[in-house]
Amino acid sequence: MGQLTSREEDYSKWYNELVQKADLAENSGVRGCMVIKPYGYAIWEKIQSNLDRMFKETGHQNAYFPIFIPKSLFEAEEKNAEGFAKECAVVTHYRLKSDPNDKTKLIVDPEAKLEEELIVRPTSEAIIWNTYKGWIQSYRDLPILINQWANVVRWEMRTRLFLRTAEFLWQEGHTAHATKQEAVEEAEKMLDVYTEFAEKYMALPVIRGKKTPSERFAGADDTYCIEAMMQDGKALQAGTSHFLGQNFAKAFDVKFTDKEGKLDHVWATSWGVSTRLMGALIMSHSDDEGLVLPPALAPIQVVAVPIFRTDEELTKISDKFFQLKSDLQKAGVSFKYDDDNNKRPGWKFAEYELKGVPVRLAMGPRDLENNQVEIVRRDTKEKQVVSFDNLAETIQNILEEMQTNLYKRALDYRTSRIQKVNTYAEFKEKLEKDGGFFLAHWDGTEETEALVKAETQATIRCIPLDAREEDGVCMVTGKPSKYRVVFAKAY
Amino acid sequence: MGQLTSREEDYSKWYNELVQKADLAENSGVRGCMVIKPYGYAIWEKIQSNLDRMFKETGHQNAYFPIFIPKSLFEAEEKNAEGFAKECAVVTHYRLKSDPNDKTKLIVDPEAKLEEELIVRPTSEAIIWNTYKGWIQSYRDLPILINQWANVVRWEMRTRLFLRTAEFLWQEGHTAHATKQEAVEEAEKMLDVYTEFAEKYMALPVIRGKKTPSERFAGADDTYCIEAMMQDGKALQAGTSHFLGQNFAKAFDVKFTDKEGKLDHVWATSWGVSTRLMGALIMSHSDDEGLVLPPALAPIQVVAVPIFRTDEELTKISDKFFQLKSDLQKAGVSFKYDDDNNKRPGWKFAEYELKGVPVRLAMGPRDLENNQVEIVRRDTKEKQVVSFDNLAETIQNILEEMQTNLYKRALDYRTSRIQKVNTYAEFKEKLEKDGGFFLAHWDGTEETEALVKAETQATIRCIPLDAREEDGVCMVTGKPSKYRVVFAKAY
Repeated sequence: MGQLTSREEDYSKWYNELVQKADLAENSGVRGCMVIKPYGYAIWEKIQSNLDRMFKETGHQNAYFPIFIPKSLFEAEEKNAEGFAKECAVVTHYRLKSDPNDKTKLIVDPEAKLEEELIVRPTSEAIIWNTYKGWIQSYRDLPILINQWANVVRWEMRTRLFLRTAEFLWQEGHTAHATKQEAVEEAEKMLDVYTEFAEKYMALPVIRGKKTPSERFAGADDTYCIEAMMQDGKALQAGTSHFLGQNFAKAFDVKFTDKEGKLDHVWATSWGVSTRLMGALIMSHSDDEGLVLPPALAPIQVVAVPIFRTDEELTKISDKFFQLKSDLQKAGVSFKYDDDNNKRPGWKFAEYELKGVPVRLAMGPRDLENNQVEIVRRDTKEKQVVSFDNLAETIQNILEEMQTNLYKRALDYRTSRIQKVNTYAEFKEKLEKDGGFFLAHWDGTEETEALVKAETQATIRCIPLDAREEDGVCMVTGKPSKYRVVFAKAY
Repeated sequence: MGQLTSREEDYSKWYNELVQKADLAENSGVRGCMVIKPYGYAIWEKIQSNLDRMFKETGHQNAYFPIFIPKSLFEAEEKNAEGFAKECAVVTHYRLKSDPNDKTKLIVDPEAKLEEELIVRPTSEAIIWNTYKGWIQSYRDLPILINQWANVVRWEMRTRLFLRTAEFLWQEGHTAHATKQEAVEEAEKMLDVYTEFAEKYMALPVIRGKKTPSERFAGADDTYCIEAMMQDGKALQAGTSHFLGQNFAKAFDVKFTDKEGKLDHVWATSWGVSTRLMGALIMSHSDDEGLVLPPALAPIQVVAVPIFRTDEELTKISDKFFQLKSDLQKAGVSFKYDDDNNKRPGWKFAEYELKGVPVRLAMGPRDLENNQVEIVRRDTKEKQVVSFDNLAETIQNILEEMQTNLYKRALDYRTSRIQKVNTYAEFKEKLEKDGGFFLAHWDGTEETEALVKAETQATIRCIPLDAREEDGVCMVTGKPSKYRVVFAKAY
């Protein structure tokens, strides 16, 4: 396997190597598109199933809408279209034929040109609102609370596994409401769901906020977001929830009759998280030995390795672990017993460390004699020898503790790398020297935001929802400001 | 809602109306692509989750491969490429720009033409085998047992909801093996999985067989299939499992070193079922009143409707049903209590009949007094009045009985519409008069097969795996034949 580049040496290289060595994903034969390998996909399935349950618990249903959007529908909501036009994959033909110059090759059949080009969805508001038009006449048809699990394509020029790929997997919620208030509440509710998921399952502390107008989703009146800090101090936007106002309803002429018989446009939200979360997960907890997975999302939570010389020893150790397996299964803990004789225990230890398995057990003949087992937890690498009695319970406690610890560790780290700054000079100096997040006053103008970005590459990640009101002045222009916003370089 | 066209009057119209009125799916603003609505998608989720579990129980893991296939990879396996070339959606550009003649419109940016066109996957063998090439060096890397849940696109000219759509959802398994025997066994094992799923969950009897060479998957050495009979006597191919030989390994140069150190090409299978199963499900059990769903796949298994005049009555009835809800939840039975005051009970009864909810309960003040409830099962429409005591158990028994009954009913129906025929004249007459499936001798040539298809529209659905050997002569040419094959018109 070879060792990973250390994080200190080159964080970016460490990330790329880890994603590939831990069998999470790899680049494919298609520019910018990734292959998500079984181990990576198993983590994604855990993310999916938990989010899916949370969406359903909050009243949403799944549905599926076409991958293609006819150009005329795509361009209907102008801001949305403008925002995504530069990264659209476009289908123009529907047939290939054999190349007259070389029968073993295929060419696009020029006679099979589409009358209207189809856009491969970069996001589905257009096709969905064109559909909702047929579903909504009266307030009785509202709200519509739908989510879709799907692939989308955004033609990115510079791609990185999970973080920025031309095709990615995501979920996109699209809801329709009778009132503005209800739509705003929905957008906020889904931000709560994302926050809970990030904190409880990913062990990832997030700052909840609103994007500035220039960072909003194209077509939204307001974009809520959760922003997380990665181990290199950079920010990663982990999820967004948009209040879309009546923009799409107006673009697609979706009106409803309210209780008083008055006709009005429908209010909308959309919200999404993607396989980008995989990148956030990796960059929040992992170390120079490999992946560190929070137990709640680990495909294998516990792995056991027997250490033996004779078949008799193996049989006895195996018996012990089979008993444990059944105890753990009852408790809903996933367990793998690796008695592959072709690989040495040391190799296995390194492998499961690389793969981020939360708890590793090892048992040799001496342990067997003493009814004990060696247990190593992935986050602290702490090694203990514990009794085999009540082992399932011991393990469950460790898993819970680890889940809590990972969150706390990430939170402490983030806290240590957030600074308040009051002058632009101080900001620039500390951004360069320390990195991390900066709480600073901003005059609320796009000009200032653009200037900071151009000069420092840092952007306003969000205006935190829990920002305290205070009298301040913009660090750049000195104009008055009531709230500090979060500046950082970002993924 | 309006009534459905009856099956007798126009089966095809009945199907189209039912799919839309029962809120399963509808046509979208994109030619040939459907919107799967929440109720339809909930059934698909049940299909998915059961199949996914069965795949995992048989040792498979999920992964995800790109939606695009570069043309040069697509054409590598010639037969496969030839088979799908005529129905490929092709991406040729990666950017839009605003139309200089009308700033509110977008046009494809001619400067953003791809150097190599990308095919939207009609099936993923090409991109997957191009990936497997990097994963396989030695027999130790085999077998690879991977499944993918994905959308695919085949540009069909005549489309029908679920049965034939330009985009559809499916799963595609792609496995790699060290020996021919192992690959054949895998293809057969997955046919078993599909058979079990069809019979046990869909209550759908299927004929297991092999396709004739001309009906094989493009690129396969053998195609196994399950064929089901719809209520109009036509066949529907419900799933296929392909033994791909070394065709893709050769096309993509995927070799491995075996235990003896010898280099050989890898053996392959692929297998898939799609949202087409939704069409099979609908056309197997439903009736003129609407959908009939097997309990194992029904999103709502039991619905309860209160019948009341006063709030006091409603409260008492609701208390009863809340108690039942908790009992059913414990037993894993999904239950909906519909106390919506804006709709009359009669309207609700028709609605849930249309939606195929297996068991419908109703309780009025008189029932409350007598501690009883009215129960109607969807398959037989039989109405009973039963005691509220042990009601959860009564319901579970009815659900089980219904699952068994639907299978039996479909099997009896199929049996009644399979005939043996010995002459071509008899075949043609009975095909026209009776429809259904025909067991007939065939000389094994493509010419005869093509002739029958051209003259009657019937095709050889399969050579049944359990065909009994008998001395016969081809119904068309009189040449000797050892086995009867299944002829039918098909979806």
